Amino acid sequence: MSHSPTLLGGLFGDLAVDAVFSDEARLQAMLDVERALARAQVQCGVIPAAALAPIEAACSADLYAIPALSAATALAGNPAIPLVKALTAQVKANDADAARWVHWGATSQDIIDTGAVLQLRAAVSHVRARLQVLCSALARLAEAERGTGLPGRTLLQQAVPVTFGLKAAGWLDALQRSQRRLDALADDTLVLQFGGAAGTLASLQTRGLDVAEVLAAELQLPLPALPWHTARDRIAEFGSVFALLTGSLGKIATDIVLLMQSEVAEAFEPAGEGKGGSSAMPHKRNPVGCVAAIAAATRVPGLLSTLFSALPQPHERAAGQWHAEWDTVPEIVRLCAGSLAQVSVVVQGLQLDRARMRQHLDSHGGLLYAEAVAVTLGERIGKPAAHALVEQAAKQALAQSLHLREVLAQTPEVTAQLSPAQLDALFAADSWRGMADTWIDRVLARG
Amino acid sequence: MSHSPTLLGGLFGDLAVDAVFSDEARLQAMLDVERALARAQVQCGVIPAAALAPIEAACSADLYAIPALSAATALAGNPAIPLVKALTAQVKANDADAARWVHWGATSQDIIDTGAVLQLRAAVSHVRARLQVLCSALARLAEAERGTGLPGRTLLQQAVPVTFGLKAAGWLDALQRSQRRLDALADDTLVLQFGGAAGTLASLQTRGLDVAEVLAAELQLPLPALPWHTARDRIAEFGSVFALLTGSLGKIATDIVLLMQSEVAEAFEPAGEGKGGSSAMPHKRNPVGCVAAIAAATRVPGLLSTLFSALPQPHERAAGQWHAEWDTVPEIVRLCAGSLAQVSVVVQGLQLDRARMRQHLDSHGGLLYAEAVAVTLGERIGKPAAHALVEQAAKQALAQSLHLREVLAQTPEVTAQLSPAQLDALFAADSWRGMADTWIDRVLARG
Amino acid sequence: MSHSPTLLGGLFGDLAVDAVFSDEARLQAMLDVERALARAQVQCGVIPAAALAPIEAACSADLYAIPALSAATALAGNPAIPLVKALTAQVKANDADAARWVHWGATSQDIIDTGAVLQLRAAVSHVRARLQVLCSALARLAEAERGTGLPGRTLLQQAVPVTFGLKAAGWLDALQRSQRRLDALADDTLVLQFGGAAGTLASLQTRGLDVAEVLAAELQLPLPALPWHTARDRIAEFGSVFALLTGSLGKIATDIVLLMQSEVAEAFEPAGEGKGGSSAMPHKRNPVGCVAAIAAATRVPGLLSTLFSALPQPHERAAGQWHAEWDTVPEIVRLCAGSLAQVSVVVQGLQLDRARMRQHLDSHGGLLYAEAVAVTLGERIGKPAAHALVEQAAKQALAQSLHLREVLAQTPEVTAQLSPAQLDALFAADSWRGMADTWIDRVLARG
Amino acid sequence: MSHSPTLLGGLFGDLAVDAVFSDEARLQAMLDVERALARAQVQCGVIPAAALAPIEAACSADLYAIPALSAATALAGNPAIPLVKALTAQVKANDADAARWVHWGATSQDIIDTGAVLQLRAAVSHVRARLQVLCSALARLAEAERGTGLPGRTLLQQAVPVTFGLKAAGWLDALQRSQRRLDALADDTLVLQFGGAAGTLASLQTRGLDVAEVLAAELQLPLPALPWHTARDRIAEFGSVFALLTGSLGKIATDIVLLMQSEVAEAFEPAGEGKGGSSAMPHKRNPVGCVAAIAAATRVPGLLSTLFSALPQPHERAAGQWHAEWDTVPEIVRLCAGSLAQVSVVVQGLQLDRARMRQHLDSHGGLLYAEAVAVTLGERIGKPAAHALVEQAAKQALAQSLHLREVLAQTPEVTAQLSPAQLDALFAADSWRGMADTWIDRVLARG
Repeated sequence: MSHSPTLLGGLFGDLAVDAVFSDEARLQAMLDVERALARAQVQCGVIPAAALAPIEAACSADLYAIPALSAATALAGNPAIPLVKALTAQVKANDADAARWVHWGATSQDIIDTGAVLQLRAAVSHVRARLQVLCSALARLAEAERGTGLPGRTLLQQAVPVTFGLKAAGWLDALQRSQRRLDALADDTLVLQFGGAAGTLASLQTRGLDVAEVLAAELQLPLPALPWHTARDRIAEFGSVFALLTGSLGKIATDIVLLMQSEVAEAFEPAGEGKGGSSAMPHKRNPVGCVAAIAAATRVPGLLSTLFSALPQPHERAAGQWHAEWDTVPEIVRLCAGSLAQVSVVVQGLQLDRARMRQHLDSHGGLLYAEAVAVTLGERIGKPAAHALVEQAAKQALAQSLHLREVLAQTPEVTAQLSPAQLDALFAADSWRGMADTWIDRVLARG
Repeated sequence: MSHSPTLLGGLFGDLAVDAVFSDEARLQAMLDVERALARAQVQCGVIPAAALAPIEAACSADLYAIPALSAATALAGNPAIPLVKALTAQVKANDADAARWVHWGATSQDIIDTGAVLQLRAAVSHVRARLQVLCSALARLAEAERGTGLPGRTLLQQAVPVTFGLKAAGWLDALQRSQRRLDALADDTLVLQFGGAAGTLASLQTRGLDVAEVLAAELQLPLPALPWHTARDRIAEFGSVFALLTGSLGKIATDIVLLMQSEVAEAFEPAGEGKGGSSAMPHKRNPVGCVAAIAAATRVPGLLSTLFSALPQPHERAAGQWHAEWDTVPEIVRLCAGSLAQVSVVVQGLQLDRARMRQHLDSHGGLLYAEAVAVTLGERIGKPAAHALVEQAAKQALAQSLHLREVLAQTPEVTAQLSPAQLDALFAADSWRGMADTWIDRVLARG
Repeated sequence: MSHSPTLLGGLFGDLAVDAVFSDEARLQAMLDVERALARAQVQCGVIPAAALAPIEAACSADLYAIPALSAATALAGNPAIPLVKALTAQVKANDADAARWVHWGATSQDIIDTGAVLQLRAAVSHVRARLQVLCSALARLAEAERGTGLPGRTLLQQAVPVTFGLKAAGWLDALQRSQRRLDALADDTLVLQFGGAAGTLASLQTRGLDVAEVLAAELQLPLPALPWHTARDRIAEFGSVFALLTGSLGKIATDIVLLMQSEVAEAFEPAGEGKGGSSAMPHKRNPVGCVAAIAAATRVPGLLSTLFSALPQPHERAAGQWHAEWDTVPEIVRLCAGSLAQVSVVVQGLQLDRARMRQHLDSHGGLLYAEAVAVTLGERIGKPAAHALVEQAAKQALAQSLHLREVLAQTPEVTAQLSPAQLDALFAADSWRGMADTWIDRVLARG
Repeated sequence: MSHSPTLLGGLFGDLAVDAVFSDEARLQAMLDVERALARAQVQCGVIPAAALAPIEAACSADLYAIPALSAATALAGNPAIPLVKALTAQVKANDADAARWVHWGATSQDIIDTGAVLQLRAAVSHVRARLQVLCSALARLAEAERGTGLPGRTLLQQAVPVTFGLKAAGWLDALQRSQRRLDALADDTLVLQFGGAAGTLASLQTRGLDVAEVLAAELQLPLPALPWHTARDRIAEFGSVFALLTGSLGKIATDIVLLMQSEVAEAFEPAGEGKGGSSAMPHKRNPVGCVAAIAAATRVPGLLSTLFSALPQPHERAAGQWHAEWDTVPEIVRLCAGSLAQVSVVVQGLQLDRARMRQHLDSHGGLLYAEAVAVTLGERIGKPAAHALVEQAAKQALAQSLHLREVLAQTPEVTAQLSPAQLDALFAADSWRGMADTWIDRVLARG
């Protein structure tokens, strides 16, 4: 099934996921449900066995023209009604008897929802595989960069040293939670929808549960406690899982864009022909992949809120709120998958300037070690006094462009507590990695 | 320029507006800007006159293949960079000298933003025309149904009588405000973007303002005080105007869906072949048009919030927030236009059951006139006492399935104040239209 | 700890949850963390044992004045900084040595986040208990109303019969999922935050993990793999869980508001003194509880989107995005708890008009049984032919105000297939409950 | 009227605006409407003149206890019902006759909406005044810093030179649009709500328009064409205007936070006692004001989407959607005003490091002038060739840590076109201010 990319689809989307949500795939998913329904009903003796082959033969999306279905959908209010009509006609052309049993006992929403669930399952599978690759890359990065010090930054101010390995482990930790959330979707979120006109399956008289069980097995979907035509929390929860992943990817992208700033220049997206140039400025190297990921993280929250706004669906079928989901869920998945693809490329080809990182650790007159000094002094003279002393020394260092160590070495209250050697030790980065390696170990152990 | 409808495009969109936002139209809009730029620069003597014809000849979207541009956009980070490259190559194939002057002094965002403004202007023009037709239909309805009484409903409870003409006038009043908002967009919202790499137009040295003025005139766009690469309030305001219209259309649709309920059955969407049927239930007549409008009103608020989330764009060009606008703005306009098309069809073919409305006015034991009685009594015995008296009578009427008038006629505190004829008059609907006609007149006078 | 209700707090909130999120409770939660930190550090030998009692004595919110802390927070940028200062001063007033060890090794965000987690845990506990009561009430309702037939309604049109027990089971099924989600929050969502200035706990040198483990045990919180200062997916996920519940409650409220419409009148909120009256209309009985629940379901999606917009937090501490969570998370919980309280009252006192429901089943000329007829006929003459036949009969019944059974009894294509007795059986509601009882059983078995 | 600040209120809010939206102020605004209604009705001869003084005397918020009203509101569903009861009782205690005429002919929503409009008008007035001060400060900054060059940054990469005056002018330009939007709110957005139970004012019989006109005059509010109980576009538009301002302030704050980064260090929030320190790091200087503004810009879009989600309000009074506005609109205004207050302080005390800016212009081997070189070369050898040449030279400069000018001076294709003097001139910042001063002039002329 081909899917021609749109102008912006390559930047924001993922071709494989776009294909999962193409109109052709949407039709095929609905037809897959109709086919499985016929199979289940033959198996349960609800419809004649002879009807199966003709129905199966007609359940192929390439037999149906989208423009005609589109026009009919605009009148009918949903795509299942015209599709069932067209499917029935297609079956009838070969076997009038079989045509009698198409879509037997089902309602439009059964087909549309279950079809959508099949598409979502395919998308989840694709995203899980891609995410696994990214997590592996991050695990390698966390391991490899354990010893790479750089300034930790709070409120965009240099604060105290961290390691790049710890940054990568933090990114990975969040993505591992997304992995677990994606895994859990198969249990009670991506389930069969099958309830007939108003959820009772009355059209199948006493055989509703039997057919439902076989249909669920045919499609390898869990059978829920009851139909969920207007209980849409599963859909909103599904959207949340992808929105959480999009947000965690957006955090990685935000960090990298900030590290890639001209004035910071500690990390860079991989370069490449045609990658991140500027039409006006020949020297520019733009963070294209991260920008797409940030765009996704900016767009998905609003899309997600639509799914939550649509939760209160009236009675046994909604009048607009359900319809609001149809394009919104795929769009969230598409943006998430696109962001995942972009961030994966970025992380896998990430270029670090470790010398620059080290240089930043020592810049600003050693102020990154101010906390270390304050803590050590604090153990001797109390935190408030130590804090005040170091704050004063830091101000002096900044004002006079001195190194903090020099100022401290000339401060009697300090030299009374710390020898020159002790003072020097406080300004050696490696003594200040703290629990960084422990945290990395804990994350890697979970992977 | 053709645009093939998507499966759901007919239901939720408007083909004319979809065409405005097709990939082909997006390319053409950018090329229109490049052509106008060349013209303006020739006119200002910035580039040689001989360059114009070759550039103009290449500014046609059908010369460029979207799949290739899509792939290049994914690397470049925006569609203008590969388009400018392709355009330059196209010009160069005919005239190497002319190719030197393509996109002269401009930056990608100048082309993308101004191109988008051209598309938005076309969409506004289309929507204004469609909205004018709907407003005329509503004006006719307000006029024609001045005398059609039905229950006013508050919190979905029957309250006091209103007229259908007043309902229509209320719908119209809100749409008239949307008309004024759409009209105002031309003044300071849909304006030229032209600032070069970082807004100074330094690439044009001293001739930046001259070129900008001529370019604005070429494109018939206002020239803003300065470039607005990262001042995006105009875009969010534009989205708000369409979101307000979508919401006001959603209110009309909500009212009609509620009136069309089986138990209310006072108004109906027009019927038609293939319109609003059910795959399971042969007798159903579903409110398809209104459902699409409600879906739009459910989706647009989240999309709009994206535009507001994207407002804080850093420095001279955003890193993701701008990119979040690209698909979001067209989607808002598309959903608004689709809702407008659907509601227009519904309103123009709206079927009223006036007898049913009248019947509802008199149902529930005359309780709709309770306020009338309370007011008249209140003038004599004070509002609290009258309110208590009528509340008690209403409860008795409900409990004993009596008409409120009967109960009141047997209540000495009431008969002491009101003669039987006065009591009868209070239950004649027409005396209780209040200001309904005046309000209608005031709205129609504004139209 | 008292908390004075706001004007609208009683309508939209839940006093117990409001108390959890009062300023006093916020302070106390932060002080609880400071106290637990001191205990943990004494236990690990990081600070002297003598410091503990003075610190513990000062960790009581009523020692601190909110107006002064508010003013200092506006300057400091977060409430922990002035609170730590005030706490230190308070300790120092009794024991200058102990004051040296206040807040040792921690950063503001450790205190604010862990304090918030303690508040959220308390709120979860309260909501879980309330939700259990509501679920029990719904289980009783589902059981008791198994035999209560009423029209199933799709797109707000009467469709086919359902039972009220099934409606209640559908509501319950969604709330059971919310119960499971709330239960899961304790595992990996409500966890300790403790990382020091930039996540390394370097301030505690080699003892960071030890202190973290004891601190987590003190507060009975799980210890996460690493600090999560800027990995906020847990917070957004937490918000999602409450937003899902709010949406599912909004669905119940929507159904009841629709059932309570004057023209439907099948179910009613419990009445009561001062409940749901109108200032203008003495006879009105407004759905006050459901209206509050719908208001909550309208407000929460936007608040939730804020948490997702705030996910991409830069580097080791955010510059605004974290701060956007502070009031947003409590507001989501507060609205959810308020909705839960209102819906609980409504469901526990719900009044049903079963006669009216039965009457609706038979109104509209028996059209609710149209699907039943079409299915039975379809088994004999095929679905398309049966559908067409019944659609035609339904139209005739509507047009001539006849009962569908009468029209069918005079249709030769029908009488050729069905005897009068068979036809009569199709219009007996109980034969059309389908799987309703089975679905109810499945939901109740899960409870 | 006092209003005690909440713990976070000083950081995120504005005390003056908080007072406008306090519960006491909300009550007083509703009482102001009741008082004006009595005056108007006396003037129109609808109620007796003697009723006026007793009613006026009772229209003072301090006569009413919020906790009791809160509890009654929870039952009644809105605060006007218990307030009218309490007001009537208060009047009755002095004058039983006058009590009969309290709230005559009005409905709860008339009082709540018009009361809210009065509060919003007060808030607009306050915000306009504050915004005027900020605009003046920005105008001074734009004027004063015309000559202050710094790197323009696109996608957070240094691009080409701009001036700080131009940055300030860009900020001002957006705020000027917000000023115009705020001014326009008085015309058709902040209008009287007065329609009685369902919008007809039938309770006033033929005198509805007269009373409405006098009431509007009393309150100095425009009289709309008709009541707008369920036409809420004005409210959503009002929210948009404040959300646009919040977003534009967020853009200023974002720029300043980025400029204040340790590695950029070109601009700083004003310092002050207790301002922006850290509990862990003595040397930190955090961008507190900007952080609050960014938090506001993160929160407001979701709140705004609630107002748009609430637009489709059913029939003559909403069942939850209206109620969703009550706390949401004040919260948007409050956050906007808080952001405005913080940004005003920041801008008025903004500290610039002009030497650092100049140094950045020359850093990175002169790459900021690459566009200038490319343009000048392009005029001679065509843009594509020039672009390629400069891109190559820039890469070489970066790779070999040379200045771009050195590389170019050794490139024959360049020296063939440009003399050494011409080359030097291209690297002098002032020749590259382009239209910066012109843009500034245009913005200042509009102020």
